[in-house]
Amino acid sequence: MRADGRNAGDLRPVTITRNFNRYAEGSVLVEFGHTKVICTASVEESVPPFLRGKGTGWVTAEYSMLPRATHTRSPRESSKGKVGGRTHEIQRLIGRSLRSVINMTLLGERTVHLDCDVIQADGGTRTASITGAYVALADALQGLQERKVIASSPIKEAVAAVSVGIINGVPLLDLDYSEDSNAEVDMNFVMTSSGRFVEVQGTAENEPFTIEEMDRMRDHAIAGIKRLFEIQKTALTK
Amino acid sequence: MRADGRNAGDLRPVTITRNFNRYAEGSVLVEFGHTKVICTASVEESVPPFLRGKGTGWVTAEYSMLPRATHTRSPRESSKGKVGGRTHEIQRLIGRSLRSVINMTLLGERTVHLDCDVIQADGGTRTASITGAYVALADALQGLQERKVIASSPIKEAVAAVSVGIINGVPLLDLDYSEDSNAEVDMNFVMTSSGRFVEVQGTAENEPFTIEEMDRMRDHAIAGIKRLFEIQKTALTK
Amino acid sequence: MRADGRNAGDLRPVTITRNFNRYAEGSVLVEFGHTKVICTASVEESVPPFLRGKGTGWVTAEYSMLPRATHTRSPRESSKGKVGGRTHEIQRLIGRSLRSVINMTLLGERTVHLDCDVIQADGGTRTASITGAYVALADALQGLQERKVIASSPIKEAVAAVSVGIINGVPLLDLDYSEDSNAEVDMNFVMTSSGRFVEVQGTAENEPFTIEEMDRMRDHAIAGIKRLFEIQKTALTK
Amino acid sequence: MRADGRNAGDLRPVTITRNFNRYAEGSVLVEFGHTKVICTASVEESVPPFLRGKGTGWVTAEYSMLPRATHTRSPRESSKGKVGGRTHEIQRLIGRSLRSVINMTLLGERTVHLDCDVIQADGGTRTASITGAYVALADALQGLQERKVIASSPIKEAVAAVSVGIINGVPLLDLDYSEDSNAEVDMNFVMTSSGRFVEVQGTAENEPFTIEEMDRMRDHAIAGIKRLFEIQKTALTK
Amino acid sequence: MRADGRNAGDLRPVTITRNFNRYAEGSVLVEFGHTKVICTASVEESVPPFLRGKGTGWVTAEYSMLPRATHTRSPRESSKGKVGGRTHEIQRLIGRSLRSVINMTLLGERTVHLDCDVIQADGGTRTASITGAYVALADALQGLQERKVIASSPIKEAVAAVSVGIINGVPLLDLDYSEDSNAEVDMNFVMTSSGRFVEVQGTAENEPFTIEEMDRMRDHAIAGIKRLFEIQKTALTK
Amino acid sequence: MRADGRNAGDLRPVTITRNFNRYAEGSVLVEFGHTKVICTASVEESVPPFLRGKGTGWVTAEYSMLPRATHTRSPRESSKGKVGGRTHEIQRLIGRSLRSVINMTLLGERTVHLDCDVIQADGGTRTASITGAYVALADALQGLQERKVIASSPIKEAVAAVSVGIINGVPLLDLDYSEDSNAEVDMNFVMTSSGRFVEVQGTAENEPFTIEEMDRMRDHAIAGIKRLFEIQKTALTK
Repeated sequence: MRADGRNAGDLRPVTITRNFNRYAEGSVLVEFGHTKVICTASVEESVPPFLRGKGTGWVTAEYSMLPRATHTRSPRESSKGKVGGRTHEIQRLIGRSLRSVINMTLLGERTVHLDCDVIQADGGTRTASITGAYVALADALQGLQERKVIASSPIKEAVAAVSVGIINGVPLLDLDYSEDSNAEVDMNFVMTSSGRFVEVQGTAENEPFTIEEMDRMRDHAIAGIKRLFEIQKTALTK
Repeated sequence: MRADGRNAGDLRPVTITRNFNRYAEGSVLVEFGHTKVICTASVEESVPPFLRGKGTGWVTAEYSMLPRATHTRSPRESSKGKVGGRTHEIQRLIGRSLRSVINMTLLGERTVHLDCDVIQADGGTRTASITGAYVALADALQGLQERKVIASSPIKEAVAAVSVGIINGVPLLDLDYSEDSNAEVDMNFVMTSSGRFVEVQGTAENEPFTIEEMDRMRDHAIAGIKRLFEIQKTALTK
Repeated sequence: MRADGRNAGDLRPVTITRNFNRYAEGSVLVEFGHTKVICTASVEESVPPFLRGKGTGWVTAEYSMLPRATHTRSPRESSKGKVGGRTHEIQRLIGRSLRSVINMTLLGERTVHLDCDVIQADGGTRTASITGAYVALADALQGLQERKVIASSPIKEAVAAVSVGIINGVPLLDLDYSEDSNAEVDMNFVMTSSGRFVEVQGTAENEPFTIEEMDRMRDHAIAGIKRLFEIQKTALTK
Repeated sequence: MRADGRNAGDLRPVTITRNFNRYAEGSVLVEFGHTKVICTASVEESVPPFLRGKGTGWVTAEYSMLPRATHTRSPRESSKGKVGGRTHEIQRLIGRSLRSVINMTLLGERTVHLDCDVIQADGGTRTASITGAYVALADALQGLQERKVIASSPIKEAVAAVSVGIINGVPLLDLDYSEDSNAEVDMNFVMTSSGRFVEVQGTAENEPFTIEEMDRMRDHAIAGIKRLFEIQKTALTK
Repeated sequence: MRADGRNAGDLRPVTITRNFNRYAEGSVLVEFGHTKVICTASVEESVPPFLRGKGTGWVTAEYSMLPRATHTRSPRESSKGKVGGRTHEIQRLIGRSLRSVINMTLLGERTVHLDCDVIQADGGTRTASITGAYVALADALQGLQERKVIASSPIKEAVAAVSVGIINGVPLLDLDYSEDSNAEVDMNFVMTSSGRFVEVQGTAENEPFTIEEMDRMRDHAIAGIKRLFEIQKTALTK
Repeated sequence: MRADGRNAGDLRPVTITRNFNRYAEGSVLVEFGHTKVICTASVEESVPPFLRGKGTGWVTAEYSMLPRATHTRSPRESSKGKVGGRTHEIQRLIGRSLRSVINMTLLGERTVHLDCDVIQADGGTRTASITGAYVALADALQGLQERKVIASSPIKEAVAAVSVGIINGVPLLDLDYSEDSNAEVDMNFVMTSSGRFVEVQGTAENEPFTIEEMDRMRDHAIAGIKRLFEIQKTALTK
């Protein structure tokens, strides 16, 4: 039994609130327990230079935390004048994950910017961001279809993500901050609704992990992500 | 009659939601109509170098907008690697406004960081930030008193702010974005609960303004800020 | 009686020396007592991207202090790699002030850059900059007319600026550095020659100020700026 | 059969040349085929601020490519004034990988900086860097022991890394650049000599991958890394 | 005969105006023809980290041009966020030149900052800066002696600088901007009053230069710098 | 007799290894004793903005040191976010030196980027860079000719460089690091194969130097550079 009463294979309560922002083409507030992330999808009618004239689109992501999203205040990256390594790593992960389920030819020469801004951070901000950004992206693309900007949906399948960690030898799904701080291993899985992986990232914080441990974490992740797909689907049909 | 049905001297609906963030010593979500700002107050047990060893405290502010707070997406200042002139101007204004109502000796050698993050921008983000930051600051200082960190309240009086503009020759209180874009003059007033001013800033966007116009805007502002003091007080007694 | 022998409503000796620089289209050395600012106006035959193709011009300003303009040396902003908040605030103020008196359609698709470089700072550098920059701008535009680049003068009226502060309850015009350091309130007024305001900025350094104090400062400012218009006019007719 | 004649499970020719640099405490030139990386280990007698006074050490890594390490020249990150996202990601990976095999208490309050500079890049630069950096680190720590700076070796076990990708459905070990450009999936494995993982990172470039594909890539990687441990051991005993 | 009527071996009119700035410990306006540079010497009672506790002082220089010092306006380095290569090169040259004539032990643990700000540039800004900075430095050190901060003068001898170029095969002293733009070779000489060199820098703009040309330029420079020493001495005895 | 057994007028062993990099159009590893620099020449089919449409080419250089090229590790300039003054100075010197021997009209509208990356630094890195970059550039241009991209060779003559210093009054050729640290004077000479100079830079580290000393250093340099031309020629004919 975990500190918040969950079993090893339980997600935290997950909610996805659509249309959180009046202006963005797609927007959600996604909550994984106390972790809260605003995800907006902004459509721009142009593509980066390396894609111009090729007839295909682009999906890119930026990630940031408000200074007091965390237990103690962190300086803003804008004040420091540069984006840190962890932020770079996460926003590249979010972008790759979402691109994996989009048909760029059907999207056409336009860019969707996904902005994931963490307003409260209690662990799992990158997995919540991917899971929420998918819904914001789906809403934005649905809007393009309704306004006849694109003929058919560029979405190939859904994508969602979850973390799994090992504490005292036990694999636990969807770590919160206090669990994450004590985990021996931390793996993030990004999976599509056809049951295939787009990203798998495992890191030993102290002790390296065995093949058996990796497989047990993977089983937990698959079960958890399947529940996330249901939550996304429910949110999108409201 | 204005586009949203208000009279010239009406504020938009203003709400202040306290304890919006689990971790900050003080935090609110302040809304002026569709403008929404998260204000957090973070207490740090040290002061900037120029104040060390003087026994007095410091209050400082940072201001930022999420990229899609606005009608079209703006690039992040962290990605551009520098904080723009408008942001600098606003965060300096917020900091000065809040410092004016704090007794720095009673605060002692500690800093309160006020972070004002605009999650949706429909005009008046700087005045909403000041009005909301006061409540977050009051909560943080109340907490210090309750935990016996400080002996008595450093708050001398309340502070709030509002904008007034002139459109077609008529002074209007608390401009929203579409009004602000069409205003001939834009003034921001920051006033304390004793009816005195800490900041007055007026800018002619096209035509310069006369003394009479300035006085009429001032009258509107005084009436509007008095209502904001009531809203702050109500929020703080909940 | 003030430390330098002035009465409360006196300006410091103000001089405006035209053609201070061989190369600029307009240039002055403006002195408000010991405060000395070089203002140059440089004409560029293009406009910023947001104005291209609209047939209208632009006026923009930059402000800087030499490292030893002040009592103690300050690091250069170029060495620190970024422009500080105070500098941003001042150069935005100068730009807005000068744009308010220019007919951008008559200027045509060109930009005038006003560079205000403080070589000695004894208070009032921003008001001296605005007052001097107007003369440099007038000279540059006069040159464009003489060379038949523009058909008629884009200048609608003159603009000048002055500061007023309250020390020991007494409003004093045109504060020098030692007065400014002791002022309870500091207001800057930017006014046009038709007696209307383009910018009013008042800041309480310690104690907030009342309506009556604001009105008394305003009266002082109006009288002071009228004298500055005479000094500008005299300089321009030499 | 692959373009360079290798079978699916073959490494490229791997060589590790020790003492490549006269000054560094440890240094190697590591070559994975045409990929060449200089790895130096520099010992500094201090630790970062967050570790001071705790009696434990630190290992950190930086990674960079010479501008013409690649087929076409890339601008230097020093000229661009910031380190890109890919570089951040890789240097964080190298640092974590090496820290996982070091006993920081035995290292004591000192930092080892691992600099991995790619002088020629033909795919697999991050895995070559980890594999080579281990040898440079081992040399530096051996030196500390010989000079009696530390009492016993902080090395817990060896660490090495390799990439595996899937091309046309076939899992291939140790991709070169042209293979990497065509891979559907790319996984990097970092493993210790006890057969446990410290990092596993898999990315679908186009199509997501199945559990079965992941397992087949893992098998290839384990076999490949075992051969790398032999090459490291041989190099260290010369 | 040159465009401005000078003979090949003539300096432009050179003037050095002391006490140009009220606040700096030493300050001059130095003019080489139309080239005008403000040089200030600021004394700071500390040294850079690499010299702390060694009992010796430091002299360092910064160089900058106002944006409209030149025929066409150049962007400010503070706006660009970095100091350019040419600026770096020149300020390093000025610093080295002045340090060469100072006894750092007699200066004691303090730093003199020399700021050379070009307000009008017509060629020779670096040589004018060195020549003027020497006088500002001498004044600042004289002040330290008079206030008994240092016991004896740290100045070993005077230093001055001049440029020489070759145009149409003829070596010309002290090039102005239009000559400099047409010169085949440009050499800068920094010499002390004992007739020895501290810096010699020669650059072929198009055609390389021969030993004979180098020697003829050197002769011109020696004669020119000797006249500059007289001008410095006259300025310092006023 | 010097510490490494050389006579005053001896170069260190100099080797130039061509085709050091598989991808660059020209590349060498140049060694002056323990100083080792990788020089690559990269051809780009465009020119900087200020040359577009003029039909002439450009040659530019960048210089960098690996962090542990030196006795103690130096922070990377990419991590510091800016290129230092010394680096700027050296890369400008390399660029000017190489441009002096190239006919830009024969090169046509293309740029050659010379990257000089020091992998081990024992003094003389800038002179080794110039000497090696010439060979890399010659190889790249030879390639352009062979592929019929250009009709005839843009190379006017060869260029090479060497340092000379004075230690204990004796002029020594090609200083290594320990000699350079003790030198009273340090001069760098860049000379073409027709015996003419493109750059001469002399700096007194402590004591200024006389005309006689300058002439003796020049004689040493001329003899040394002549031997470097032979080494370049031999390398290019292999």
